[in-house]
Amino acid sequence: MLRFGYDIGGTNIAAGIIDENNCLIAKDSVKFPRGEGSEAVIADCAGLYKAILDRAGVAADEIAGVGVAVPGSVNPEAGLVIDAHNLGFHHTPLATLLEAVLFKPVRLVNDADAATLAEHRIGALKGTRTAMMITIGTGIGGGLIINGTLFGGGRGNGTEPGHMVLCNGGRHCTCGIDGCAETYCSATRLAKDGASFGKATAKEVIEAAKQGNADALELFKAYIDDFGSYIASIINLLDPERIAIGGGVSGAGDFLLKPLRADVARKCFFETCPEIVVASAGNDAGIIGAGLIVS
Amino acid sequence: MLRFGYDIGGTNIAAGIIDENNCLIAKDSVKFPRGEGSEAVIADCAGLYKAILDRAGVAADEIAGVGVAVPGSVNPEAGLVIDAHNLGFHHTPLATLLEAVLFKPVRLVNDADAATLAEHRIGALKGTRTAMMITIGTGIGGGLIINGTLFGGGRGNGTEPGHMVLCNGGRHCTCGIDGCAETYCSATRLAKDGASFGKATAKEVIEAAKQGNADALELFKAYIDDFGSYIASIINLLDPERIAIGGGVSGAGDFLLKPLRADVARKCFFETCPEIVVASAGNDAGIIGAGLIVS
Repeated sequence: MLRFGYDIGGTNIAAGIIDENNCLIAKDSVKFPRGEGSEAVIADCAGLYKAILDRAGVAADEIAGVGVAVPGSVNPEAGLVIDAHNLGFHHTPLATLLEAVLFKPVRLVNDADAATLAEHRIGALKGTRTAMMITIGTGIGGGLIINGTLFGGGRGNGTEPGHMVLCNGGRHCTCGIDGCAETYCSATRLAKDGASFGKATAKEVIEAAKQGNADALELFKAYIDDFGSYIASIINLLDPERIAIGGGVSGAGDFLLKPLRADVARKCFFETCPEIVVASAGNDAGIIGAGLIVS
Repeated sequence: MLRFGYDIGGTNIAAGIIDENNCLIAKDSVKFPRGEGSEAVIADCAGLYKAILDRAGVAADEIAGVGVAVPGSVNPEAGLVIDAHNLGFHHTPLATLLEAVLFKPVRLVNDADAATLAEHRIGALKGTRTAMMITIGTGIGGGLIINGTLFGGGRGNGTEPGHMVLCNGGRHCTCGIDGCAETYCSATRLAKDGASFGKATAKEVIEAAKQGNADALELFKAYIDDFGSYIASIINLLDPERIAIGGGVSGAGDFLLKPLRADVARKCFFETCPEIVVASAGNDAGIIGAGLIVS
């Protein structure tokens, strides 16, 4: 059977069909109807579903079920989005609302967990039983594979690795606490610190560092030290086999990975250090991961 | 069937018999034969085994197996102590050596994991599926229960929660890294900082704080802030149901727990905060946990 996945973000709603081999066989996206309420979101999702199935020549009865990835906390059993700030969803019964228009079972998943699932099934975490996905963007997201399956948190809240404390009492985080890893290891940190020497984005900072700019190199070195300590913290707690890094900053490839691996190896408490790799499931990991949660 | 457990420490070798209800029905201990090599340890273990069985009136064929908790890294499958610095054991085939004198199957476990198992089966973590035990002593030890069972690390190395980084670049840790949680949250930190106002131990610092000593109160407040951020880091990553705190510092009871819970509640990213409790399996948790790993 085929499965249908949605990746609902604050900018776009992306969706697609995945086949038995977990390959995306058709996809499309529309702009997220910001400020128009959940009814508009449901209508757009229904339209996207029909358009993608039509274009792919897939009949509705070929679809086993629908998975939906959202950037926020969800209760999959109740089919509830507890809180997805960027979507304006608060205690929204999204699964029930979608089931009423799609006539299919709908299951929700946090977007970072969906990406982790995709990495585990078809990407950089394939073959691992205990591993972590860390996405470095404006903030930090992530997901954990423990004993071969997605770990949704001990109480079902998922994981919020960006809010591990890396420098207690340090930089102020949007969550209200001082010293969260997110304030040191996100792309935002590189952009913020890069402003002092005229760089506006993490990408510009990394490019400047690659070209030997002294300010950018100094910042990048401090970033590697922070990021390395952050990853070492997770390793020393969970002893994972592999850590995959996704998000824009991971695009720096070996320029990031080589010094990062060396830093983590020094700080890892165990005799050998887990593998640190770049995520490979790509931009559609959210859609694919959403499709993968359909049982 | 009955089970026999050893808790081998750098000071004492403690051992005992546990029954079907996981109760310790007989126990004894001898001094650890420091510097006399593994043969002396094996001889002492054998003597302790015979003495305890004799005194309890238990025949050897009533013992199903033997568990051994050691302060270090172990490979239970190979029956090997990889490294237990305090015991002078390095790649020591302890299980095989003991099996040769006890004529019973012997299984090894890290001592912090043994204590965690005891808390989970008979102590403060009873009834949980995802929980953490943190022991605050000279250093910091701990163990994780995930999905209802002891989590021995993704690669079998266990957990080293004392070496999560809490203040990157901060206080120098014995492991060589600057900023490990151990340097901020251990009893050693309280003793070290207390020296500046004439207190020699964590207990003395806590007693002075209880009595309103301004220096001690200031130190204790900083300690709670560090300890709270440390626990919040673990919560934000794993979302556990409950965290149990053991070791000498936990003897401070509500004087520690009340401000600690308030601090963690503030720093916890989720809507509700997991329970934070004092470990309750007692001083024999190591022996009992060792017995519990006998299948």
